[in-house]
Amino acid sequence: MNPDLRPLAEASASEPWYQPAGNEVELFEQCHAHQLAVMLKGPTGCGKTRFVEHMAWRLGRPLITIACHDDLAASDLIGRYLIQHDGTVWQDGPLTRAVRQGAICYLDEVVEARQDTVVVLHALTDHRRILPIDKTGENLQAAPGFQLVVSYNPGYQRMLKDLKPSTRQRFVAMDLDFPAAEHEANIVRHESGVDHATATGLVSLALRIRQLKDRGLSEVPSTRLLIAAATLSTCGIGLREACYAAIVSPLSDEPSMIDALRDLVDGTFI
Amino acid sequence: MNPDLRPLAEASASEPWYQPAGNEVELFEQCHAHQLAVMLKGPTGCGKTRFVEHMAWRLGRPLITIACHDDLAASDLIGRYLIQHDGTVWQDGPLTRAVRQGAICYLDEVVEARQDTVVVLHALTDHRRILPIDKTGENLQAAPGFQLVVSYNPGYQRMLKDLKPSTRQRFVAMDLDFPAAEHEANIVRHESGVDHATATGLVSLALRIRQLKDRGLSEVPSTRLLIAAATLSTCGIGLREACYAAIVSPLSDEPSMIDALRDLVDGTFI
Amino acid sequence: MNPDLRPLAEASASEPWYQPAGNEVELFEQCHAHQLAVMLKGPTGCGKTRFVEHMAWRLGRPLITIACHDDLAASDLIGRYLIQHDGTVWQDGPLTRAVRQGAICYLDEVVEARQDTVVVLHALTDHRRILPIDKTGENLQAAPGFQLVVSYNPGYQRMLKDLKPSTRQRFVAMDLDFPAAEHEANIVRHESGVDHATATGLVSLALRIRQLKDRGLSEVPSTRLLIAAATLSTCGIGLREACYAAIVSPLSDEPSMIDALRDLVDGTFI
Amino acid sequence: MNPDLRPLAEASASEPWYQPAGNEVELFEQCHAHQLAVMLKGPTGCGKTRFVEHMAWRLGRPLITIACHDDLAASDLIGRYLIQHDGTVWQDGPLTRAVRQGAICYLDEVVEARQDTVVVLHALTDHRRILPIDKTGENLQAAPGFQLVVSYNPGYQRMLKDLKPSTRQRFVAMDLDFPAAEHEANIVRHESGVDHATATGLVSLALRIRQLKDRGLSEVPSTRLLIAAATLSTCGIGLREACYAAIVSPLSDEPSMIDALRDLVDGTFI
Amino acid sequence: MNPDLRPLAEASASEPWYQPAGNEVELFEQCHAHQLAVMLKGPTGCGKTRFVEHMAWRLGRPLITIACHDDLAASDLIGRYLIQHDGTVWQDGPLTRAVRQGAICYLDEVVEARQDTVVVLHALTDHRRILPIDKTGENLQAAPGFQLVVSYNPGYQRMLKDLKPSTRQRFVAMDLDFPAAEHEANIVRHESGVDHATATGLVSLALRIRQLKDRGLSEVPSTRLLIAAATLSTCGIGLREACYAAIVSPLSDEPSMIDALRDLVDGTFI
Amino acid sequence: MNPDLRPLAEASASEPWYQPAGNEVELFEQCHAHQLAVMLKGPTGCGKTRFVEHMAWRLGRPLITIACHDDLAASDLIGRYLIQHDGTVWQDGPLTRAVRQGAICYLDEVVEARQDTVVVLHALTDHRRILPIDKTGENLQAAPGFQLVVSYNPGYQRMLKDLKPSTRQRFVAMDLDFPAAEHEANIVRHESGVDHATATGLVSLALRIRQLKDRGLSEVPSTRLLIAAATLSTCGIGLREACYAAIVSPLSDEPSMIDALRDLVDGTFI
Repeated sequence: MNPDLRPLAEASASEPWYQPAGNEVELFEQCHAHQLAVMLKGPTGCGKTRFVEHMAWRLGRPLITIACHDDLAASDLIGRYLIQHDGTVWQDGPLTRAVRQGAICYLDEVVEARQDTVVVLHALTDHRRILPIDKTGENLQAAPGFQLVVSYNPGYQRMLKDLKPSTRQRFVAMDLDFPAAEHEANIVRHESGVDHATATGLVSLALRIRQLKDRGLSEVPSTRLLIAAATLSTCGIGLREACYAAIVSPLSDEPSMIDALRDLVDGTFI
Repeated sequence: MNPDLRPLAEASASEPWYQPAGNEVELFEQCHAHQLAVMLKGPTGCGKTRFVEHMAWRLGRPLITIACHDDLAASDLIGRYLIQHDGTVWQDGPLTRAVRQGAICYLDEVVEARQDTVVVLHALTDHRRILPIDKTGENLQAAPGFQLVVSYNPGYQRMLKDLKPSTRQRFVAMDLDFPAAEHEANIVRHESGVDHATATGLVSLALRIRQLKDRGLSEVPSTRLLIAAATLSTCGIGLREACYAAIVSPLSDEPSMIDALRDLVDGTFI
Repeated sequence: MNPDLRPLAEASASEPWYQPAGNEVELFEQCHAHQLAVMLKGPTGCGKTRFVEHMAWRLGRPLITIACHDDLAASDLIGRYLIQHDGTVWQDGPLTRAVRQGAICYLDEVVEARQDTVVVLHALTDHRRILPIDKTGENLQAAPGFQLVVSYNPGYQRMLKDLKPSTRQRFVAMDLDFPAAEHEANIVRHESGVDHATATGLVSLALRIRQLKDRGLSEVPSTRLLIAAATLSTCGIGLREACYAAIVSPLSDEPSMIDALRDLVDGTFI
Repeated sequence: MNPDLRPLAEASASEPWYQPAGNEVELFEQCHAHQLAVMLKGPTGCGKTRFVEHMAWRLGRPLITIACHDDLAASDLIGRYLIQHDGTVWQDGPLTRAVRQGAICYLDEVVEARQDTVVVLHALTDHRRILPIDKTGENLQAAPGFQLVVSYNPGYQRMLKDLKPSTRQRFVAMDLDFPAAEHEANIVRHESGVDHATATGLVSLALRIRQLKDRGLSEVPSTRLLIAAATLSTCGIGLREACYAAIVSPLSDEPSMIDALRDLVDGTFI
Repeated sequence: MNPDLRPLAEASASEPWYQPAGNEVELFEQCHAHQLAVMLKGPTGCGKTRFVEHMAWRLGRPLITIACHDDLAASDLIGRYLIQHDGTVWQDGPLTRAVRQGAICYLDEVVEARQDTVVVLHALTDHRRILPIDKTGENLQAAPGFQLVVSYNPGYQRMLKDLKPSTRQRFVAMDLDFPAAEHEANIVRHESGVDHATATGLVSLALRIRQLKDRGLSEVPSTRLLIAAATLSTCGIGLREACYAAIVSPLSDEPSMIDALRDLVDGTFI
Repeated sequence: MNPDLRPLAEASASEPWYQPAGNEVELFEQCHAHQLAVMLKGPTGCGKTRFVEHMAWRLGRPLITIACHDDLAASDLIGRYLIQHDGTVWQDGPLTRAVRQGAICYLDEVVEARQDTVVVLHALTDHRRILPIDKTGENLQAAPGFQLVVSYNPGYQRMLKDLKPSTRQRFVAMDLDFPAAEHEANIVRHESGVDHATATGLVSLALRIRQLKDRGLSEVPSTRLLIAAATLSTCGIGLREACYAAIVSPLSDEPSMIDALRDLVDGTFI
């Protein structure tokens, strides 16, 4: 590995903590072994990023993460020429670095990206495994360990935005979800240091709120919010106040919805 | 701290005056201690900017403020290359400066920003705390004191513009509002030098006008307007005239609404 | 004052002629003394620009005027880097020049400007009085005499365009209107050299046309049009012909409206 | 006059042929004498450009013509910096050249231009007569002979595009139309060399077609079309064929309208 | 002629084959002789490009062809500055080259071009015959042989796109159509080498399909398609198969329309 | 061939495996022999890319593939100037390289490209066979072996996007589809190594799913998905699990559709 690139793409030294919910680890390993690209589907905060970090560590591959958005252009992924005092010099983008190094390249929220960004992935995901770099006239062959991973949240309503079928069929897809209740309570306890009862209460609160999905709540609380509430409650903030600030208020601006959520908090922690 | 950057990000020398309304100071301190990002919600002029200035002073951190708008691009936050006579030189944007210095970075009216601007905040608000700078190939680790604070006004109707749930869930949220009547009168008196009766009268006028919200008034008067009216009344402008100019006219262009507001002024200061 | 900048921002040598209609001079002086920004509302051609020129002369401050439009970007106000043979050099925009010199900065028709342009004004209009220049990393403190003045025409229908409440509440507002009839006739006579009867007739014509507002006329005639008609009538053009060309034709392209306006002209100058 | 600029802005040596239809020559002369800007309204091809050329010759001023369109930016009018090997050099745009030389600047079809282009004209059309050039920091005072002339076609339906009232009121307006029948026949004969009967027949055809305006014909035939048909008929093309090619076919693609127009031709030249 | 420019604009050495259908050759010659611009209307593939090539050869003028499209900017036609190591150098665009050389400049599918592109043609098509090049400050007078020719397909439905009347009236228009049946069969035989019966059959098939216009077929088959089918049938591909591939499939993706077209093929070549 | 360009456009050394379904190989060969451009129509994953690779190998021509998308500009195909320290240097784009080398140039999903990109193909697909490069003033004549091939999926609903008839008529079109069942089973077995029964079962599953087209499934499964499922089933992943991940989940996010597809899987592999 080129040491110059180490800061952006280094295999993690310590194992990122991840507890499998099903056969997703085995499935990912086989996809990697057979050079199949992977698509992760799941709600916000269900652990998609963690899972990819864990797999990169497990497979001993560097990981390069790219957060996709409306204005992500193909050149942001591939690279561009920089003007120097003695001419122009080519600078690899993050995707090109991943292809050269055989890294795992993770495009988070890929449906947000523009079409030109998505289309450059096509030749990397079939038998060719090449990245054509038009601006340099190079047809880059992916290093053996290279694997493409994309993710998105199928439950979040996007207008007019979707992956084209011709893109979707280039991936093996895995459905991820929030961990089971007991497992989620363990995570909350482990990350925040609260006691078992509080962690269980927070998860039971989350489960009730998650049932409000499709009843006015545009998205349900992630484990991340539970950990934030738990953390605040360990340092002098009242548990209910912590839930108001870390769970209720981030979920909605709608006064009636906020009242309903606060009632759920109050009913959970009497 | 790099002395060259002092003008943009220096911890305030004198304490910015701020009187807490609830537990917001304690909550903010704990969020800072646990590296949790903070989202401030509240109406125009309720004191969000003052509160952040106060907390930066209290925590001894430099403060970097960014006013968000429609055309704020990610590169405005992160930085860009400047062409020099001997090649290009990288120039940090305000967010990058905050990340390097461990400053508090405050994005005012964050919902106005473009998606690409918001997405660059994601990796800074989870366990990674990194700012990937694609153009330099750097993955910047946030300095310990770095904290992200954003604000917006949930009562102001924006068409089609909203923070995505996956962004919202990265923040602990605090709801701020106008100060209580007596407290607000103290502020008006303190900042303008009017007598107690006038200050109380102005606040009582404001409370009546604030009840017109949702009845044709797109936003209610902030404490700032009361101070302006009070200030003008101390230097020879009649109190009613001062209220017309500093409170009524800035709130509406609608003749019938202006008449109603002027009637409220006349009824308050007979 | 930097002599290099004199052409753009020099305090007027001779007094710009202005006759107050109410307490607007005193109100403006107090706003300037207390560093309050001012918003002028009024119809096209009612004298907003003249009033600002007069106040700048009266207060002994340089005046920098910026005509706002759809494509006015923040960098047009603040400044930009120019490429020179030995590197790039920063060039202040007009707002930055005003902030440095302590000038009065007048943004005409501010509602036409883009949001990013308006947002840069925020930190200049509260207790901070700073202009953050991201591209140079400078936080410019406004010189003592600096004052921001904006104007717009509340009667002109703009689709979807409006100042945000959070912007409006940063200004003390003054409502200007056309001068009273006798006063307006004096102005017409003074500027064109016509006799008293003609000036009075033109003003009486204008008053009748101004009543057609909201009955198909998108905007009413300004004093400027009366002066143009008067001027033409002094040099051999018939008075009616002068009114057709200088008043009727600029106001409308609609044949039936033009006929109605011509009838008003003919009825006024039989 | 700077000899380098002569090709773009030279007073015509020979008189452009123009025959007045009313008092437009006298009115234009007085506007020029009193530094009033002029707005010409009239249908396509009625002679607006010729009239301006004639007046420039008559007044002994250079003429600079700018055809406006959707993408005409303010910098196209004012000027821009060009990069040279030893730095950047400022290059005046056509409006700036006109302002410096005291030329007549004619903006053809001004309603097509973008708002930022129109707004730069404002300070040139009131008592200030200045052109602020933000990029150079120059406030250019118009030379004495400078006059602004704009034109548009009020009968042509444009969606959402119009001059703002605050712009319209800065001009004295003149309504131009096609010449009277006999006069138009003289022009056709003079420019094409056809005999009197043919010229009269062509004009009578034009008058009939012009009555179809508002009955499916988006615009009526200009004198230019009559001259083209006349010219072709003098060199071996049959008169009807010449009318089909030079008058009917340019006016419409609609088969039924084309048939109706051809019937008019056949009925005129039996 | 400047030998450097020969590749782009050289008068053809051998005569491009063209058989006139009416008086279009004579009409074009007279337009050229009298410096009138020409507009060719006609369906896709009816021979507009060939006709212009033929006329350029006949008139001994170089031909410069420009295919218009949505993103064709005025600078693509006129030229631009290129940065060189010792400053910038101006490079003529194809229209400027045609104007300098006195070439015939042919803008194919002119309605696709942007307005700013079309407007630069105006001063070239009236008595001025000049091309103003704002960026160089040059007012280029067209060389004597210069002629502007534009084309479009009036039968193809374009949304919101059309030539403005003020542009259309600057051209003499010629309506072109597919050649008569016998003539078209000759062309097919001449270009593909098929026998007379096959060529006649293909033309009779085309005539039947052309009657489906306005019944679901967005455009009818050009002679080009017949030649392609004929060519394939001469080298071992069955005639029906050749018609399916070269005529039916390019015309539609609609299954029912494809079936109908295939039935026509099968009925023609039993 | 220029060795510098070998990486982007080299004739394949080993034969790409392809089994003809009809006369497409012969038809393509004749098109190539007669310099006719080819348009391939067919569903996602039916083998269009493979077919072109096979034909390029068979004809001994280099192949240059370009994936089209919304933001593909003409200059991406043709080339651009790069700034170097001693001036600018022209760099050919992929289409220009293909034209120079006589390569087969394949534009995948051509309907996604912008109009300006498509229009540059016109002069390459008629008798002229030239590529005009406006920026260099070059009119590039295509080398003898050059052939243009485009593809798209006619079954996929695109809003407002379509090839213009004038573009379509420049191609001979071939309709490709999924291989026949037995043939497809052979491909699955050959590429994944599964046994005959599993391969046959997967194809029979695919045939059932493909009948859901037009009943809520936006596109049907390609052979590629079957191979992915087969591959995963050979390395320890259960066959049903493999089908869920590699076939069902990539096809839909709709819960009811996913259930229906899973039922089909379960019914196929009891």
